Amino acid sequence: MRQFIVIGHDAPTTPDFSLDDIAGGAGRLDVLCRCVNSAFFLSHDIREDVRVHLILGDEYTVRFEGSELRRLNPDERSTAALIRKALEKREEAIGHMPAESSPGVSIRRMGFETTLEEAARDATVVELHEDGDPVVQVEPPENPLFVLSDHHDFTDEEAELLAAAADERVRLGPEILHADHSITVAHNYLDTAGYSRY
Amino acid sequence: MRQFIVIGHDAPTTPDFSLDDIAGGAGRLDVLCRCVNSAFFLSHDIREDVRVHLILGDEYTVRFEGSELRRLNPDERSTAALIRKALEKREEAIGHMPAESSPGVSIRRMGFETTLEEAARDATVVELHEDGDPVVQVEPPENPLFVLSDHHDFTDEEAELLAAAADERVRLGPEILHADHSITVAHNYLDTAGYSRY
Repeated sequence: MRQFIVIGHDAPTTPDFSLDDIAGGAGRLDVLCRCVNSAFFLSHDIREDVRVHLILGDEYTVRFEGSELRRLNPDERSTAALIRKALEKREEAIGHMPAESSPGVSIRRMGFETTLEEAARDATVVELHEDGDPVVQVEPPENPLFVLSDHHDFTDEEAELLAAAADERVRLGPEILHADHSITVAHNYLDTAGYSRY
Repeated sequence: MRQFIVIGHDAPTTPDFSLDDIAGGAGRLDVLCRCVNSAFFLSHDIREDVRVHLILGDEYTVRFEGSELRRLNPDERSTAALIRKALEKREEAIGHMPAESSPGVSIRRMGFETTLEEAARDATVVELHEDGDPVVQVEPPENPLFVLSDHHDFTDEEAELLAAAADERVRLGPEILHADHSITVAHNYLDTAGYSRY
């Protein structure tokens, strides 16, 4: 399984936001929506063996489970609507128990630290870092977990947690990419594992 | 320079559409907006040496010029607003002369055939095709032009024009990707030219 954690630093923790303003009033929720798109969509298909964890304001985690997903569309607005629907269920997420809001989408009362700890259990944690090894020179792990940040850098605390959990440290190329583009490149790197290069 | 032509088969050819419904009433304009995002954005930067041509209903071409772009934001809605603004200028695009609607964005009265012909002049035309050579085994050209389609396949006529113009035929990986994800992977392939593979 391929997993992606995306930290939304300014993301809403209540459903009181307008779908007309997801890049503004809703704390750059557009970034997280594009990450969900990149993680799951193939042409006319969904990647079933993928799980995405969106960290909202270090308070809630909305999980998208590829094998169970229905009603996911590629555009930002409809994905934002799924996240808003999950936030409407936040009172039903008690302790670490999830509340499902639509098929394959659930919300948990968990911040980054707990989500990382749980997700890392059966995974190889891959840290994306500008000082990392070029990804094409690293043999892809079977169950990778990539941790990404929205339009902000990781906080010092997040960076420390990630560095402590990381099994590998790689960079995807010479350029620093948006989180959703990083997910697309990571998928391609895993998809083309074993291809020889010219 | 890196160029991308994206054909929007159902895309609007007038500005009479709502920004609240770009994935529905506006003929899947969301797909084209994500392609613009993938083509230009780096983390806190824009790829200046990129040109994107969006073909709208084989009637108009909206061009985004990386070196001149201002006011481009990553979310779909604001990019759709730039395309709508270009369509408002469509009456000023006479013959093949462009009309500029905002810095770096202009509209031309041209369909796919003419746009391809002009863009291909100083470029290596790369056809993405499932029977192509794995892209990692092909040395990246200096001035590539990638031609992509929205959520529809190329029509027979488009496929013939492209095949006739193509200098190279490659595939990006074993999976068939959305157009915007293909652009991201193509950039990474060009960015990492010369990297050796493990």
